[in-house]
Amino acid sequence: MSRLWSPFVQNLVPYTPGEQPKHRSFVKLNTNENPYGPSPKVIAAIAGTNDDSLRLYPDPTAGDLRQAIAATHGLSMAQVFAGNGSDEVLAHAFNAFFRDKGPVLFADVTYSFYPTYCNLYGLEYRTLPLDAEFRLDPAAYEGPCGGIVIANPNAPTGRAPGLAAIRDVLDRNPDVVVIVDEAYVDFGGDSAAPLIAEYDNLLVVQTFSKSRSLAGLRVGFALGHPDLIEGLTRVKDSFNSYPLGRPALAGALAAWQDRAHFDETRAKVMASRAHVTEGLSAQGFTVLPSQANFVFARHPDVAGADLMAGLRERGILVRHFGAERIRDWLRISIGTEADCAALLAATADLVAH
Amino acid sequence: MSRLWSPFVQNLVPYTPGEQPKHRSFVKLNTNENPYGPSPKVIAAIAGTNDDSLRLYPDPTAGDLRQAIAATHGLSMAQVFAGNGSDEVLAHAFNAFFRDKGPVLFADVTYSFYPTYCNLYGLEYRTLPLDAEFRLDPAAYEGPCGGIVIANPNAPTGRAPGLAAIRDVLDRNPDVVVIVDEAYVDFGGDSAAPLIAEYDNLLVVQTFSKSRSLAGLRVGFALGHPDLIEGLTRVKDSFNSYPLGRPALAGALAAWQDRAHFDETRAKVMASRAHVTEGLSAQGFTVLPSQANFVFARHPDVAGADLMAGLRERGILVRHFGAERIRDWLRISIGTEADCAALLAATADLVAH
Repeated sequence: MSRLWSPFVQNLVPYTPGEQPKHRSFVKLNTNENPYGPSPKVIAAIAGTNDDSLRLYPDPTAGDLRQAIAATHGLSMAQVFAGNGSDEVLAHAFNAFFRDKGPVLFADVTYSFYPTYCNLYGLEYRTLPLDAEFRLDPAAYEGPCGGIVIANPNAPTGRAPGLAAIRDVLDRNPDVVVIVDEAYVDFGGDSAAPLIAEYDNLLVVQTFSKSRSLAGLRVGFALGHPDLIEGLTRVKDSFNSYPLGRPALAGALAAWQDRAHFDETRAKVMASRAHVTEGLSAQGFTVLPSQANFVFARHPDVAGADLMAGLRERGILVRHFGAERIRDWLRISIGTEADCAALLAATADLVAH
Repeated sequence: MSRLWSPFVQNLVPYTPGEQPKHRSFVKLNTNENPYGPSPKVIAAIAGTNDDSLRLYPDPTAGDLRQAIAATHGLSMAQVFAGNGSDEVLAHAFNAFFRDKGPVLFADVTYSFYPTYCNLYGLEYRTLPLDAEFRLDPAAYEGPCGGIVIANPNAPTGRAPGLAAIRDVLDRNPDVVVIVDEAYVDFGGDSAAPLIAEYDNLLVVQTFSKSRSLAGLRVGFALGHPDLIEGLTRVKDSFNSYPLGRPALAGALAAWQDRAHFDETRAKVMASRAHVTEGLSAQGFTVLPSQANFVFARHPDVAGADLMAGLRERGILVRHFGAERIRDWLRISIGTEADCAALLAATADLVAH
């Protein structure tokens, strides 16, 4: 604690991202990156901005990118917001819609950045337990609250709540914003985006980091009623007018437009996910059904921390969370076919001893 | 107003950035961009990141960039913070150091984002008038307050307060953070960075957007005591773990390392500034002495809004602010020699009628 800090800083518990090793070469299955690179058209688009034009500010409205995203979804540009990764978009959304409104509701096992945002903005929150199979009960999202966040599919479990449950939560809470965080939706989930026409309180948040293979570029976006987008824009323009640089704007636009590359790479990830799920199950692991580019798994005989450490010794990074309820579970990103084979060989070795 | 917004959003008055024209080609002297492109080494460094590695998250700590900046200043990495443009760095600093601490003090004529940050975080503020020549009086920065912001040199005036005045303000206010915003310091100002060793409450904020010709890449940084950097880092890691993408990190590092390009381009800008100042003065303009890459000027016979409109008709964009005290002043960025000649021809034409 420093006498010079704002008082709330003392109690901040920042989000801890997965390890980004700089030197040793690992099979990196710990931060849900796409094992396949971005579209060659992305590389070409970024190269096209890599010149003297970098001296000029980028478009502060991200107009071309928002227009392209809007057109695909049958929305107007006024229904699309763009930001510096979906984490920034979520941060602005918590500020724009949840401040001074009552407790924010989210699941007990979900993206661990949600309570961190609440601490940053001084928001109360209440966690609602998922059931024993890590399924969400929409009936629990009832009663006065300041807002709701649902990850679709959920992280770190990979389970998707389904549109019926999301619709149920929206119907029960018409006067607060329901954020549906769809960072992983392109790997087999059903997006809530088509519900935007029906629900003015629905904000759908997506990212270019996973299914578009652009974690290194930092671009995310939100879809919703124009009033919600205006609220986000007011907050953004009170924070940083130009969150997206020229390479990011150009690269994201090209990624959005190359639907074939997107479909091909996500299909490969989904096929590998099926293969990993089968392989781990055959080794005695419990693997939750996943709609994401990772699986959540445990083994009855080996503790989660030991599994993580054993995999690390074998050159494979996975993510292990400390929380009590999931202490024996690992979140394992889906890599290339070779990565998946290396994973299964290592787990086989670990659970045999 | 939407029923779904957080109440404070209703009263937000976002910062309005200068126009970024997309189609017609203007002589663009309205957003203080560098007229010269970035170092060729920046272009090469960005090209070196433009590959499949974009699928991977960037270094969340910006370690290499912070290390390079620290070394130049004789500081440790723990004394350097990096963010998505100095606007983001300033936003985090207002949150980390000024929240719930009392009114923030800054000049009546200064960067108009400061009151916007205060509104975003619910901070009170008090503006202290510059004198008739737009000079800062350090004695006015006295008495209980939550923090202080000084632009060195100031925007939009271009006047630098001088290190003696900054030291005086620091001495009078040892228990609050004094942010010295040095977006423009490389064009002839004296940086307060050497004072960091003496003052644990000094945070110096700089940017790659101006003197490093990288407005399109979005990189800024702060220098200060490790406690201040830790406070900023806690806030940043509670907002967005990865504010700087791979192209931004690589490009900024290369820009920092190419001192020769930096020195050459800023010398050209300063020479053109002298030329513009002389030319406008000869036409009857009052031009404030500037240590920045712009000049602040007025003419006794032509209103500021008319000057701006007349220049726009002649294909030249400059910045005009609506505030009462500076309504007859224009902020004119320093362009290439050809841009400056076009400006002086247009102003000669305008003031002759």
